[in-house]
Amino acid sequence: MKATYFDGKNLNYDDNYPVPQPGEALVRVNLAGICGTDLEILDGYMKYHGILGHEFVGTVEKSGNPDLIGRRVVGEINAGCGVCDSCKKGMERHCPNRTVLGILNRNGAFAEFLSLPEKNLHVIPDSITDEQAVFVEPLAAAFEIKEQVSLQPQWSVAVVGDGRLAQLIIKVLKLTCPNITCFGKHQSKLVGILTDGVKIKIGIESSDEQSFDLVVEATGSNSGFSDTMKLIKPRGIVVLKSAIASRENLDLTPTVVNEITLVGSRCGLFKPAIDALATGMVSVDSMIDSTYPLEKFSEAIQHAKEPDTLKVFLKP
Amino acid sequence: MKATYFDGKNLNYDDNYPVPQPGEALVRVNLAGICGTDLEILDGYMKYHGILGHEFVGTVEKSGNPDLIGRRVVGEINAGCGVCDSCKKGMERHCPNRTVLGILNRNGAFAEFLSLPEKNLHVIPDSITDEQAVFVEPLAAAFEIKEQVSLQPQWSVAVVGDGRLAQLIIKVLKLTCPNITCFGKHQSKLVGILTDGVKIKIGIESSDEQSFDLVVEATGSNSGFSDTMKLIKPRGIVVLKSAIASRENLDLTPTVVNEITLVGSRCGLFKPAIDALATGMVSVDSMIDSTYPLEKFSEAIQHAKEPDTLKVFLKP
Repeated sequence: MKATYFDGKNLNYDDNYPVPQPGEALVRVNLAGICGTDLEILDGYMKYHGILGHEFVGTVEKSGNPDLIGRRVVGEINAGCGVCDSCKKGMERHCPNRTVLGILNRNGAFAEFLSLPEKNLHVIPDSITDEQAVFVEPLAAAFEIKEQVSLQPQWSVAVVGDGRLAQLIIKVLKLTCPNITCFGKHQSKLVGILTDGVKIKIGIESSDEQSFDLVVEATGSNSGFSDTMKLIKPRGIVVLKSAIASRENLDLTPTVVNEITLVGSRCGLFKPAIDALATGMVSVDSMIDSTYPLEKFSEAIQHAKEPDTLKVFLKP
Repeated sequence: MKATYFDGKNLNYDDNYPVPQPGEALVRVNLAGICGTDLEILDGYMKYHGILGHEFVGTVEKSGNPDLIGRRVVGEINAGCGVCDSCKKGMERHCPNRTVLGILNRNGAFAEFLSLPEKNLHVIPDSITDEQAVFVEPLAAAFEIKEQVSLQPQWSVAVVGDGRLAQLIIKVLKLTCPNITCFGKHQSKLVGILTDGVKIKIGIESSDEQSFDLVVEATGSNSGFSDTMKLIKPRGIVVLKSAIASRENLDLTPTVVNEITLVGSRCGLFKPAIDALATGMVSVDSMIDSTYPLEKFSEAIQHAKEPDTLKVFLKP
């Protein structure tokens, strides 16, 4: 099959890569999305080698569950061992022996086929297009914030970052909190966010400091954490959404002195994201950028790396 | 008056230091305690210059409130501006213009007299001795954890550190959570903790890793944070109690990947601590070490710095 895999140094293309072995559902990938995490993996994050890609929509070709065959699906990306304490509690996402599609010990979606356990798959209603369906995984990651933090409508909320994940987070937070300010860097992206009725700022003014009840760090850059800590009120809640922004030279002293709560946040459950897209509660259409054939992965990755790019798709 | 003050380099003694000016309650210090924070200030923390000391019990000599005069009191150490949003919400502890007794722009308790706003003072019942009363401030800091985290009795709890604050935290957590393990370094201190019915360990075994629902970091050392992050379960709660342990070379990536919640925790309200001492719910008698006259501050500080020392008092 056609596949784009990472050997630890370069992203390679192979049109004769082995098809995944049976034992799980075999899914033919209709469309895959390029995520910031993919770009981080290409920079060495997770030390992952193999087929990249964890945002996808596909069609089930083989499965032990006949009801799934031929259905259009998206898939939760964490596959637990099924027997540990985390898995028994339904927290496969935190199984210490988990594999993660395109991220950890499991080939991903930048290929003609992928395999996942049947229970990871969610059938997608016809009202959701393929392009929209690819957003289910990152949108679920945004909805995870609502699982972890009891959002209050009167809160003053800041989102630090203006990239793809930041924009999805803003769409989700807006469902509860009308008062949101986005601190970004790229004027062109911020225009898209402005149409969502959100205040936008480039740079932090002194009047912004310590003035937000909730700050979500979603920059994917090293300066994200210090900007976030400038904005948060004493006793406020910070949600950390990007792992890459949270390394090195951090000083947690203000966290202790100002009694900040930092909430690490990663993957979310798919159902709220599917429901939000199906009902039109959240629209992602303004975030669709362009689609490349899988063979043009190199151009697609280059495009995705440019600061103003929204969601780029690969079509096997 | 007699006072021990820090000039940024050395701790000095002066028997003719000016008595605090009127405008607040004037308190004659009966007894003051030496805290880890005092030792950190002597190492440069907070860049504080002035009279050290924030744990005390004293007798009110002058006050605009005649009911206070002659009463034995302890005092909340943060004095807010009274007009900002934090102060209006009763959160003087987070007032951006606050002074803090013996820590920030306010002379402290290692002296014959100190001054504090009347509303900061709490009258101490006769059933609490002077030595016990000095523990109200650090015990309030331990009770702050109960204000911030909804403790569950079935939780497996770890306290990292075996010093004075760690021991008070263990006493407070034990009121709700019977299953506590203390990870310490000093065998002699751990014996004291053992009598509280708490499991003690020197060093982390592989079976301890990711096995605690709640971990409290109270080491006051740089290795505290990484040990803490080894112990916490995915989706667990970490309470950060020591600012000094939270600087430099930190990696928050596991916080995001394992969706940990980090709760910074500093000072607490005095009432729960006074009640716990008055009712005997918490006993601090095993933590009393020795008392030095204020003039012997230098020997007292040296003693407090030794790893096995419990609470050392200064008597003006």
